[in-house]
Amino acid sequence: MKEYFPDIIKIEFSPGKTGHGLFFRQYNPVEITGEKSMKEHLRFSMAYWHTMCCGGDDQFGAPAYVRPWHDVSSPMKMAEERVYAAFEFMQKLGIEYFCFHDRDIAPEGKTLSETNKNLDKIVRLIRKMMSETGIKLLWGTANLFNNVRYIHGASTSCNADVFAYAAAQVKKALEITKELGGQNYVFWGGREGYETLLNTDMKMELDNMGFFMQMAVDYAKEIGFDGQFLIEPKPKEPTKHQYDFDVSSALSFLKTYNLDRHFKFNIEANHATLAGHTLQHDLRIARINGMLGSVDANQGDLLLGWDTDQFPTDLYSTTLCMYEILKMGGFEKGGLNFDAKPRRPSYTPEDMFYAHVAGMDSFAKGLKAALRIIKDGIFDNFVAERYQSYSHGIGKKISDKNPDFKSLEQYALKLKSIENPSGRQEHLESLLNDYILNS
Amino acid sequence: MKEYFPDIIKIEFSPGKTGHGLFFRQYNPVEITGEKSMKEHLRFSMAYWHTMCCGGDDQFGAPAYVRPWHDVSSPMKMAEERVYAAFEFMQKLGIEYFCFHDRDIAPEGKTLSETNKNLDKIVRLIRKMMSETGIKLLWGTANLFNNVRYIHGASTSCNADVFAYAAAQVKKALEITKELGGQNYVFWGGREGYETLLNTDMKMELDNMGFFMQMAVDYAKEIGFDGQFLIEPKPKEPTKHQYDFDVSSALSFLKTYNLDRHFKFNIEANHATLAGHTLQHDLRIARINGMLGSVDANQGDLLLGWDTDQFPTDLYSTTLCMYEILKMGGFEKGGLNFDAKPRRPSYTPEDMFYAHVAGMDSFAKGLKAALRIIKDGIFDNFVAERYQSYSHGIGKKISDKNPDFKSLEQYALKLKSIENPSGRQEHLESLLNDYILNS
Amino acid sequence: MKEYFPDIIKIEFSPGKTGHGLFFRQYNPVEITGEKSMKEHLRFSMAYWHTMCCGGDDQFGAPAYVRPWHDVSSPMKMAEERVYAAFEFMQKLGIEYFCFHDRDIAPEGKTLSETNKNLDKIVRLIRKMMSETGIKLLWGTANLFNNVRYIHGASTSCNADVFAYAAAQVKKALEITKELGGQNYVFWGGREGYETLLNTDMKMELDNMGFFMQMAVDYAKEIGFDGQFLIEPKPKEPTKHQYDFDVSSALSFLKTYNLDRHFKFNIEANHATLAGHTLQHDLRIARINGMLGSVDANQGDLLLGWDTDQFPTDLYSTTLCMYEILKMGGFEKGGLNFDAKPRRPSYTPEDMFYAHVAGMDSFAKGLKAALRIIKDGIFDNFVAERYQSYSHGIGKKISDKNPDFKSLEQYALKLKSIENPSGRQEHLESLLNDYILNS
Amino acid sequence: MKEYFPDIIKIEFSPGKTGHGLFFRQYNPVEITGEKSMKEHLRFSMAYWHTMCCGGDDQFGAPAYVRPWHDVSSPMKMAEERVYAAFEFMQKLGIEYFCFHDRDIAPEGKTLSETNKNLDKIVRLIRKMMSETGIKLLWGTANLFNNVRYIHGASTSCNADVFAYAAAQVKKALEITKELGGQNYVFWGGREGYETLLNTDMKMELDNMGFFMQMAVDYAKEIGFDGQFLIEPKPKEPTKHQYDFDVSSALSFLKTYNLDRHFKFNIEANHATLAGHTLQHDLRIARINGMLGSVDANQGDLLLGWDTDQFPTDLYSTTLCMYEILKMGGFEKGGLNFDAKPRRPSYTPEDMFYAHVAGMDSFAKGLKAALRIIKDGIFDNFVAERYQSYSHGIGKKISDKNPDFKSLEQYALKLKSIENPSGRQEHLESLLNDYILNS
Repeated sequence: MKEYFPDIIKIEFSPGKTGHGLFFRQYNPVEITGEKSMKEHLRFSMAYWHTMCCGGDDQFGAPAYVRPWHDVSSPMKMAEERVYAAFEFMQKLGIEYFCFHDRDIAPEGKTLSETNKNLDKIVRLIRKMMSETGIKLLWGTANLFNNVRYIHGASTSCNADVFAYAAAQVKKALEITKELGGQNYVFWGGREGYETLLNTDMKMELDNMGFFMQMAVDYAKEIGFDGQFLIEPKPKEPTKHQYDFDVSSALSFLKTYNLDRHFKFNIEANHATLAGHTLQHDLRIARINGMLGSVDANQGDLLLGWDTDQFPTDLYSTTLCMYEILKMGGFEKGGLNFDAKPRRPSYTPEDMFYAHVAGMDSFAKGLKAALRIIKDGIFDNFVAERYQSYSHGIGKKISDKNPDFKSLEQYALKLKSIENPSGRQEHLESLLNDYILNS
Repeated sequence: MKEYFPDIIKIEFSPGKTGHGLFFRQYNPVEITGEKSMKEHLRFSMAYWHTMCCGGDDQFGAPAYVRPWHDVSSPMKMAEERVYAAFEFMQKLGIEYFCFHDRDIAPEGKTLSETNKNLDKIVRLIRKMMSETGIKLLWGTANLFNNVRYIHGASTSCNADVFAYAAAQVKKALEITKELGGQNYVFWGGREGYETLLNTDMKMELDNMGFFMQMAVDYAKEIGFDGQFLIEPKPKEPTKHQYDFDVSSALSFLKTYNLDRHFKFNIEANHATLAGHTLQHDLRIARINGMLGSVDANQGDLLLGWDTDQFPTDLYSTTLCMYEILKMGGFEKGGLNFDAKPRRPSYTPEDMFYAHVAGMDSFAKGLKAALRIIKDGIFDNFVAERYQSYSHGIGKKISDKNPDFKSLEQYALKLKSIENPSGRQEHLESLLNDYILNS
Repeated sequence: MKEYFPDIIKIEFSPGKTGHGLFFRQYNPVEITGEKSMKEHLRFSMAYWHTMCCGGDDQFGAPAYVRPWHDVSSPMKMAEERVYAAFEFMQKLGIEYFCFHDRDIAPEGKTLSETNKNLDKIVRLIRKMMSETGIKLLWGTANLFNNVRYIHGASTSCNADVFAYAAAQVKKALEITKELGGQNYVFWGGREGYETLLNTDMKMELDNMGFFMQMAVDYAKEIGFDGQFLIEPKPKEPTKHQYDFDVSSALSFLKTYNLDRHFKFNIEANHATLAGHTLQHDLRIARINGMLGSVDANQGDLLLGWDTDQFPTDLYSTTLCMYEILKMGGFEKGGLNFDAKPRRPSYTPEDMFYAHVAGMDSFAKGLKAALRIIKDGIFDNFVAERYQSYSHGIGKKISDKNPDFKSLEQYALKLKSIENPSGRQEHLESLLNDYILNS
Repeated sequence: MKEYFPDIIKIEFSPGKTGHGLFFRQYNPVEITGEKSMKEHLRFSMAYWHTMCCGGDDQFGAPAYVRPWHDVSSPMKMAEERVYAAFEFMQKLGIEYFCFHDRDIAPEGKTLSETNKNLDKIVRLIRKMMSETGIKLLWGTANLFNNVRYIHGASTSCNADVFAYAAAQVKKALEITKELGGQNYVFWGGREGYETLLNTDMKMELDNMGFFMQMAVDYAKEIGFDGQFLIEPKPKEPTKHQYDFDVSSALSFLKTYNLDRHFKFNIEANHATLAGHTLQHDLRIARINGMLGSVDANQGDLLLGWDTDQFPTDLYSTTLCMYEILKMGGFEKGGLNFDAKPRRPSYTPEDMFYAHVAGMDSFAKGLKAALRIIKDGIFDNFVAERYQSYSHGIGKKISDKNPDFKSLEQYALKLKSIENPSGRQEHLESLLNDYILNS
């Protein structure tokens, strides 16, 4: 087995050190914080597509990434070498989970049968490597957007043959996800949307998408796959409009088709911001609906209007993300999947490591800050105090849903004056800085 | 009764004429198109706030609009004069509906009781003017965002007293809307949202908002108000995030609190675009859910990031809006409310007329184009042809929800090749131009 | 010579006709309007890259366009077949100009010498086809962004070898543009910008870019190329920031490096809107600086944040574009280059024609509306009237730059009141609708 | 003299402390860092308009801020009380500079003469307070946007009377800025732009604006005002387009009218981001042109499309801002002016202090991080290394502007391969985190 990163040894935690060189400044996998080790809290995952498959091309530029396993000429041989590179990479970083699309791991064949055989062969190799290394599958999914057949969508295609083909593909993806012990199965509807309403029957498309997901739920039950189904919202790109625009939109869809009890969300930072939300916002919406499943850990550039999938280094975002995760009791089946790619000019294999270290350290710092925020209770207490009027008197009655408009009018007519507390936003932002700097 | 626009006579339809001067180029209220007159199709409404109350100030500039009735020193006398001005204005334009917030028509008094008495007095005058003119109330609502008491929201305030006060205010607003024969009642949650999640209990706020709306539904039933409840989504502004972000978000909220059968939507163009959607998109989402109620007819500037509430003059937007309205069978209780204000430099009373004429003509043209699009069937036929695979064979089975993943896989494994039709977007856009130019 | 579009005959003007089928509704090339024929006014150009080379892939999808000349296995043979297809395409549409990057027309060889030989061979074939058909070269340019060597920029690369290579490439591109009688040479600095300021010496990069352009000007003089140099601004994409952000930014750059007298602008609609401007805005800025050269005729989707390069079908945009072109006296060396691609789902060869017809008709209509706007003078007269205070009295003195702050203060101290006219924006927008509908 | 903040004592530096309460965590005014004290580095300034005048109203809400000096009924008496409140506020925070518009400090009278007398009276009081406290004037300016007379602009108004009035107003503002020892004079062209090009003569407007600024320069020379003129760019709001869109646009304007040697820039974070730039970007552009004068220290919300003028608490932004300031050698005449207002729900007087403390601490931390970044040289060395090819060989010749296209082609033809270094963006972002956390 070829060593793909011969110059890189296992990345170690080196607290207090800075400067160039590959080491963790914040991430100490075995450090116990809040009764779990850091690695149990964070459950980092490598994204197979960006890290092992992406060429670093963009709409104006040719592939740029140096990835030695790309040089192999036979597609199946390349797929095998990619497995070895992937596990070497994860081991050297200490990443214990990965995620993939079916087409990331094995190439399409000339027929669907051949494609499935290709998959089976690589799945066997991956299972062997998982067994040898202890690395686990966070989630699997099917790529229903790259191939030209999906030009008008997959389950929302205007073409029934495409719908059928997509069903066959998801069936197989569910089977291999189960086989590899995947803890979740993700739907990202990259082309489930429209380019123009002038040619679109939105109602039929949504009905078909609902039926498609119901069949997936049914088939999972049939084969005994007990992973969690996740929807990953994104508002647009590649399509003009994607049906799973954001968590709220997807929740509305799930409720309309009676699917909400079968699904949670896989929330991606860059997708949330493209929809006009902070990452924390979409996490919060999912959390209070009991539907926060997993996180695609990346960040966008808010001054750019497309999905840049940058590695997450913004400590505000990582801290507030971990706050929401901790407030729901930590991940159950989910994790932090680095759905991120180095910027094209960071094209060397070393940058793969530097970028993951940057993301892992940023989340480790965010975890520490969030743990201390929760332990100290300063924000939670502020919130509790702010809403205290609902814990007694008329507020308590409202919380208990006792009054009606008439009784509330009687109360209001007698009110002398209304005193509102200050929201203290600037002070709270300053306190957040304290926690990030001092945790 | 003072005449407020003495230099302006009733605006007439003058087809084929252009240039300066006040006349309709496209809008002929009595022209029968598609079995209804134009005015029955369009149901234009004047927005009391922008047209009768707005001063033309912005965040960097003092009030600028010349509105003679603003010169009256006593608030109640000004409120009366405003009624006269409003009805004169609507009559001269031939607008047969209006919409208002409680605080638009009568000033707050020192106490809630006094405020309600102010309202009662003006409501009597308005009822008299309605009776004399035949002008009708499209919808009423309560202003739960301007007064400082609503600094943290109304039904989502952290302060239970504010919740109670808001309930009293909506109770009264429902009563006067009923008294004036209002056909709808609108909730726009201007401050039902948050500035920062650092101080926000989102779950409690949404629970309270749900309970509040349930009480409104209950009270409407109790007093026999049979108007339609409408939610008007907006993503942000004044708050950083407004809970009714867009139609899908609000639909998710309504379903969560079992309110969806009691509500439809009042969709505003500028709010849709601030949420990242076209107006047609949000209309379509509402329509296919059977929840398209009414339209706030305006437009935003897509290169600006705030609510400019401009008069609608974009013929693409008015045509596609009317297409959606016609496809649902036309307005039942809703209408086209000009939630729009002249740009600040258009500060004269004449601009009030010019701006409404611009909007009414643009929608009249849109109506004519949409009627012909539907009559000719060229777009509908294109769509039907595009999805024809679902009308027979495997597609028909999918539509009937017969297959499962296994049977679809069997079908897919046998597929030789997949042929997708072209989406023909550019050609369809060109055809849309034809319809706008030639209708 | 293979016929690549055998089912398509020359597109004809068929006024009054609508529906499916390939014909012009508005564009009549030989119609004389404003003392020139439509085709002389509009000077349509085909963009070689999108129309002949683009595969229809996006960041999430494989190439989708059906383009028969892509099937040829040898790169040089494919380049030849592409020439035949291009000229057949232009002739059938009646497009008389084209634009190209060096790498669009001929493939890179193993060395720069070989690459240049490839170019020479194809240039000979193109010259022959130009001679046979009368089709002309609007502009040429060099592709300094796709190859991996330009990963950090071309003239702004941190690598001096790259700067030198780019110079060699532009030298050759200038030579072939001259050889083919190109009327302009364009610089679009696709990677002349930065990804992060953390690693960027902006001053050195701009100095180098200035020197690079000076050398281009010098070399053009040396070889007797008398075409117009054009800068094409774009704010971002692929880079986070592109130095030629918009017309004003590029103008600032040109003035700083004393290059402004050698350059004009090639303005692209979708680039202007990505920078936060309307197309008309950037055209106006260029026009009043005497630097409006040529137009890349396309449109973006203002609700999407990336360069969609859609075919221009918005009649507001085409009318106001042609208004600016006509106000500068029409194109001298520039033209309307369709830097546009069919949406990916419009993947058939027929869509290439449908899309160009849509764009050509939209500009023909815009031309007719703009001509009548200028002939009627209604907007120009409104503007003249609005600023009439500068034609006499204190305003005349200001225009003549006579007063100083002291004399103006003396005047202002005596002013009784200030009367401002209305801006009448809504009325003007309505008049614009009249002109689009009735021209 | 009434004490306006009786419950608040002078804010002290309390390192290591966190939680509620008013104290500095990072800002120690007298700490010497990099050979200057923190307060000499940072030169904090209070913005008179937001802090002393703003009511906390927004487009949908009434004034909300509790500011006791607003209760005074006489405008001139209120203006006096405001002065006392302002100086008490600055002293308790240890802020040693302030900035104002003419109309912030004194109300308009019935005539321009009376207005100027009002100004003179308050200026005398301010001068007395400055003398007593040692507080200095960072910059003055004239409010040319709020009054209705400026509805179409000031120096770019279509009305020559308005141009004259604006000239008189700036003349007086220059006089009082000089009288108070102001170190700069700022032009923010709030309404120097347009709402629609349909009614705008852009060329005349820009010519007038150029002439206006030339007169200001001339008058300053005449009266011996040696403060620095500054332009503050903003892309839009309140107007659709503001001529000083960003630093580059304003630089282009200044060069066109030969004004560039008389002006530098006052750069506001929130304005930069509205223009699509980071704050650091616009600082860098100004710095490398030798035109970085002063900073309006605030931040926007990148998910909102309007000017929120929030207090700066983002440590990335403050660190990179201070990096640019330090790289130009520190402020000469400029400073950090808090052009910021507490969010409307932070409406109490205490929030004025909390918000400024948040901003001052964030900039103090940013200063410390930037100083250490520069001292360690890790970023500067990385940049130097990245561009090292320009220090010898062909690169050195390019830097010296020796080659031409022909010599560079000769060089390029001989190049074997091109080796580009990695941009290492993710690693650099991680290092930036280290510096923020560890400085």
